[in-house]
Amino acid sequence: MSFDRLVVSIKEKQNPTVLGLDPQLKFVPEFIQKEAFAQFGANPEGVAQAFLTFNKGLIDALCDIVPAVKPQAAFYEAWGWQGVKVLQETIAYAQQKGMYVITDAKRGDIGTTMAAYADAHLGVSKIGDQEFATFNGDALTVNGYLGTDGIKPAVELCKKYDKGIFVLVKTSNPSSGELQDKLLDGKEVFRTMAAMCESWGEGTIGEQGYSAVGAVVGATYPQQLKELRLEMPHTFFLVPGYGAQGGGGADVAGAFDANGAGAIVNSSRGLIAAWQKEGCAAEDFAGAARREALRMKEDITKYL
Amino acid sequence: MSFDRLVVSIKEKQNPTVLGLDPQLKFVPEFIQKEAFAQFGANPEGVAQAFLTFNKGLIDALCDIVPAVKPQAAFYEAWGWQGVKVLQETIAYAQQKGMYVITDAKRGDIGTTMAAYADAHLGVSKIGDQEFATFNGDALTVNGYLGTDGIKPAVELCKKYDKGIFVLVKTSNPSSGELQDKLLDGKEVFRTMAAMCESWGEGTIGEQGYSAVGAVVGATYPQQLKELRLEMPHTFFLVPGYGAQGGGGADVAGAFDANGAGAIVNSSRGLIAAWQKEGCAAEDFAGAARREALRMKEDITKYL
Repeated sequence: MSFDRLVVSIKEKQNPTVLGLDPQLKFVPEFIQKEAFAQFGANPEGVAQAFLTFNKGLIDALCDIVPAVKPQAAFYEAWGWQGVKVLQETIAYAQQKGMYVITDAKRGDIGTTMAAYADAHLGVSKIGDQEFATFNGDALTVNGYLGTDGIKPAVELCKKYDKGIFVLVKTSNPSSGELQDKLLDGKEVFRTMAAMCESWGEGTIGEQGYSAVGAVVGATYPQQLKELRLEMPHTFFLVPGYGAQGGGGADVAGAFDANGAGAIVNSSRGLIAAWQKEGCAAEDFAGAARREALRMKEDITKYL
Repeated sequence: MSFDRLVVSIKEKQNPTVLGLDPQLKFVPEFIQKEAFAQFGANPEGVAQAFLTFNKGLIDALCDIVPAVKPQAAFYEAWGWQGVKVLQETIAYAQQKGMYVITDAKRGDIGTTMAAYADAHLGVSKIGDQEFATFNGDALTVNGYLGTDGIKPAVELCKKYDKGIFVLVKTSNPSSGELQDKLLDGKEVFRTMAAMCESWGEGTIGEQGYSAVGAVVGATYPQQLKELRLEMPHTFFLVPGYGAQGGGGADVAGAFDANGAGAIVNSSRGLIAAWQKEGCAAEDFAGAARREALRMKEDITKYL
């Protein structure tokens, strides 16, 4: 199963973190923007090409120390099909460099529609017998509000193509509790979703002990993170909310099991905008990301 | 507010239905596929171009009798950026023909990420002061599992650009009850979401009496549809599940208020694949869709 590859790579690099590729123009050094606009125009294509150059620089600088990337689809979609094209190219480039790719698109729909999303992001689309892989990430974030009908088509593809999904369980945002913390028969909504994840994952458990159905659990709720770790023994965690959103190394410690495994922690702005926070030369944006990635690795692994 | 335009158009055409543009190769007549493959190749671009020809034929045939279209993003995404480009082109073409466009993408994320989705689908993206509209639909379906943080950025754009959103409340699929029907303090999850919709919509109520925050409520649950209509007086409904999924005119009657307003009913396969069900010549696919659209209009309005 797909998370086996991710877990092995985390062990090899001794680094349970993921580089969030959430490009916005304000984070991209001006020299990259200028060059892209000169070549492609100050338009959606120019922006998309600037994102690609930026992403490649970050991937090149981090691929030997960080096992995975997580591009956030929204920031590519904001620039229309030109942005979406660069999302595909970013995924392909990161995989070429040996990184595991989690496409953060939080897709959720039913039946044939969910199957189409799964084909797009984890599988192939077909013309007769000819197969075309399009986005082709290694894992996809999904929203389980629609129930099993919205998850099953993706799990089927995970089995077939050795991929994974991460279901939103307890998200990192301040208002996540409005629905997720409400009590269902004495148990919070997010725990109901957690139990559904364990059940959806049955029959897909790999060599490393995790099913193909992972969970998104925010770093900003350390207590719930710790409790869910115990309640979801076969579920691999994707943990957003580290860094810019306020979570630190101590906050995410509960995401890991006694062996220091079972989770990967994301940082987006913290890494891609490290050059601005550090105040170094814009040309050194990738160097700053690498320095911050090493600091983050140390900050997280010292608690394991 | 945006739903004003939709409601006025529904009244003018006396037809509260929406054409679901969910293209899959199996629904596209062979002569369209052949022509597109000959010109662009049997590849993602060829498929996307076949979808565009198919969609344009359907829009041309229905734009004088059906007020709106609802393209389902998944079926375009399945063909990568080439499909996404045709989604943009389909939206623009339908608007050019005077139709209201609901982009069915069920997006849901938080903060700046949700703002990026909203920029993409309802607003503009910016390079300095230059604005670029990309997908630019009139309304977007969204998932509220993440709470207010996931909805607010979209509502802000609705106010600014006169657009609307539809939040998933009670979906049409068989397993929607797994989470949505569970009891929260004696009230189902979907009713909690319904109350949140009414509250998110406050301050955005337009001349026609509806806020910019609509709700998705499935035709396959007629009793809940009726109850929610009473509980959500300011919320416009998007009703999937008619036709292929099993709902009929009597089932969706409860979605409408005493004046026969307040909802729009979607049919996708029922319309776009009408030529196959009817068994007419493939060349007449748009004519068959028009005949079925008129039958559907009659089937729904006779109960109002």
